[in-house]
Amino acid sequence: MNPIISSSSRLNQEALAGLQAIFGDRFSTAQSVREHHGRDESFYACMPPDAVAFALSAEEVAATAALCNAHRIPLIAFGAGSSVEGHLLAVKGGLAVDLSRMNRIVGIHAEDAIAVVEPGVTRTQLNNALKDSGLFFPIDPGADATLGGMAATRASGTNAVRYGTMRDNVLALKVVTADGRIVSAGTKAKKSSAGYDLTRIFIGSEGTLGIITELTVKLYPLPEAVSAAVCSFSDVEHAITAAMRIMQNGIPVARIEFLDSHAVHCINVHCKLALPAHPLLLFEFHGSESSVEEQAEATRLIVNDHYASGFEWATRPEERSRLWTARHQAYFAILHSRPGARIMTTDCCVPISRLADCLLAARRDCEINGIRHAVIGHVGDGNFHVLMLVDPEDADETSRAEKANTSLVNRALEMGGTCTGEHGIGLHKIPFMAKEHSEDALDMMRSIKRAF
Amino acid sequence: MNPIISSSSRLNQEALAGLQAIFGDRFSTAQSVREHHGRDESFYACMPPDAVAFALSAEEVAATAALCNAHRIPLIAFGAGSSVEGHLLAVKGGLAVDLSRMNRIVGIHAEDAIAVVEPGVTRTQLNNALKDSGLFFPIDPGADATLGGMAATRASGTNAVRYGTMRDNVLALKVVTADGRIVSAGTKAKKSSAGYDLTRIFIGSEGTLGIITELTVKLYPLPEAVSAAVCSFSDVEHAITAAMRIMQNGIPVARIEFLDSHAVHCINVHCKLALPAHPLLLFEFHGSESSVEEQAEATRLIVNDHYASGFEWATRPEERSRLWTARHQAYFAILHSRPGARIMTTDCCVPISRLADCLLAARRDCEINGIRHAVIGHVGDGNFHVLMLVDPEDADETSRAEKANTSLVNRALEMGGTCTGEHGIGLHKIPFMAKEHSEDALDMMRSIKRAF
Repeated sequence: MNPIISSSSRLNQEALAGLQAIFGDRFSTAQSVREHHGRDESFYACMPPDAVAFALSAEEVAATAALCNAHRIPLIAFGAGSSVEGHLLAVKGGLAVDLSRMNRIVGIHAEDAIAVVEPGVTRTQLNNALKDSGLFFPIDPGADATLGGMAATRASGTNAVRYGTMRDNVLALKVVTADGRIVSAGTKAKKSSAGYDLTRIFIGSEGTLGIITELTVKLYPLPEAVSAAVCSFSDVEHAITAAMRIMQNGIPVARIEFLDSHAVHCINVHCKLALPAHPLLLFEFHGSESSVEEQAEATRLIVNDHYASGFEWATRPEERSRLWTARHQAYFAILHSRPGARIMTTDCCVPISRLADCLLAARRDCEINGIRHAVIGHVGDGNFHVLMLVDPEDADETSRAEKANTSLVNRALEMGGTCTGEHGIGLHKIPFMAKEHSEDALDMMRSIKRAF
Repeated sequence: MNPIISSSSRLNQEALAGLQAIFGDRFSTAQSVREHHGRDESFYACMPPDAVAFALSAEEVAATAALCNAHRIPLIAFGAGSSVEGHLLAVKGGLAVDLSRMNRIVGIHAEDAIAVVEPGVTRTQLNNALKDSGLFFPIDPGADATLGGMAATRASGTNAVRYGTMRDNVLALKVVTADGRIVSAGTKAKKSSAGYDLTRIFIGSEGTLGIITELTVKLYPLPEAVSAAVCSFSDVEHAITAAMRIMQNGIPVARIEFLDSHAVHCINVHCKLALPAHPLLLFEFHGSESSVEEQAEATRLIVNDHYASGFEWATRPEERSRLWTARHQAYFAILHSRPGARIMTTDCCVPISRLADCLLAARRDCEINGIRHAVIGHVGDGNFHVLMLVDPEDADETSRAEKANTSLVNRALEMGGTCTGEHGIGLHKIPFMAKEHSEDALDMMRSIKRAF
């Protein structure tokens, strides 16, 4: 299915010796280790690197980059392996440098609401470390991704509607460049106008401009009160229209997630829940006690206008946790609904006024092409995912899924949107780069790549 | 005072003819027009360009860029002329392209909370146009700057503590490159992970990478309720410490401004007010009626802990307007307090925990060097301005002011801060680029400049 064939190993004896000298027994060419690093959560078949090195420091990463640069060996940064777009596949072989052991929390500066972390720190690891600080790190892409990987793909997720994306929440970076320099970008100040925004250049560059070895991220005070709410709709259109109106009314929801009836069915089975198998909106509100109550009430009025049923309001942590655990399980719940299938996911993001049209048309694309699917979405940002269940052995089905994907992405672009709101380009969205960006814009990106 | 001497005109006959062909009577070499375009609000003496062209379209800007590129003529984009760092001075002569007549509001998409504008649109013009939409554009640097200029300098101001800076509020740009191409960056979607963040590369690039000819900016629903509050402190330290605690407690203030007693005195005189001539914090709260009340009450408790007096809470629009007009007049009120003087301003931004130390030490730098000054600050962001009143004819005083400036900027950098939070580098902060950024980081910036 993946049309790109790995070339034979580029690791000559000299490179091998160099890497062994840097990493000792943290360097491996074992089949199982390579295979583990040759796949992600995308539908692509495994495409292992020629070798894997487990880095412990920026200096090791820098030495590795210099060595790989000298020997023209492709170098892939590997974190949690939770990409859904094939970022991590070694399409040209080469070395995977696994950063998951660089997972030290370098410092938590509670009084400045910032944390300095190594790239292998995951979001739950950071939030666990923050437990007694009264602070939290909000960005939540669902998977327990590493912060390095999240920055590299400009990730976001459920909380982005309130707290922004990785673009907005990284103050500073340390990055190893292709030629093995360790460069700092940004400061610990909340804002700066001093020169080009190098930090933002690396965020979303997907490892093509350098490897992130340290991040300084923003933290937020834990809200005084948190509540969740859930309600069902008779159809998708009502659910999405309600979500659009909630945003247009400026209700500062912390999360507003959509699940279609298929997604609800799957999480009911997977998580032993009994949610009504209808399109559903799931909310979280953050603020003071009274503000959370106000937000929930304002939301209730809008969803009721759209014939929502069962607006249920959960303030108890265990109830909230049950709902959000189910939401976080949605990807795997949907995956497990068809044994042997893989998920081809879409990631369109459009201006909020076009969301209902775009999402409904995307569902039709799947129906026309006979593709089983479920839709979940961070609808407050105009961002949704069609999770297409595809048998990777079935070439015809895969090609029909690709057809549906192409059709719905093109439509999102025509609506002024983007081919990827938060997953990144990886392998699967490469064909859409030239549709989303003008040739001049792509030229600029290429010239940045060359310059670095 | 400005050490850089303009070279003689680079506009040869061919270039002159080309520009006249593009602009007709919107092209001028008149002394008065050139002088108007050779100064800004900084303390630098006038340094006029060789000619001025008033552009009406991106195509004219593109043709101008191509022509200037071919003839190696320096090209300076001019908006409102409100820079305080000497951005606009024609240090090497050349052409100023005045974009203030490119002030069309291309579209207001209320349902998506975005506006598309030409670069000469000012923030008050945009907010006037939004009057009946229920939306507003929050970024407010004080001056009625153009949005193009604000994006080019990554501006922010009083509301940034709640709504972010220009970095966070521009979704898409059209930019004319040095060689005269018109390039689009970004989409109308709220977020995207599709490729390098070209939009953020141009924001803060101060005209060195291209000229912005169109911006798509985020708008926000007008808050249901707005209130302002003001209180005085016995000394600067108590005021700043209170501000730090308010931020650390996560109170979502929309503005939190500091003025020292000299600044208060100046605005009392200039605006005929009778505020107590003590260090002062000025707040604005946005939200629902009850949330605004809650925020004000939480703030009152903290400032009272720091012996604030006269916590006055203004919900009536005219009272608020009176207070904020005074704040916006502060720069000119301070300037007018010493006839003939110009202001040399600093713009440090530090992690909030270091703000009191940094600001107090900055005042001492001025005192040691015998420089009259006032301090105002967007203290919620850790950002403050020391406005040094300098007689531009007095070389000794100017040099003592530079000494104070150097000392206080260096300290901010040592504290993990930046030499400019929102004004940009311009001419005056150039020496600090190499102190704030490593040689490798500067190298990267240079390589981006070369690549573009």
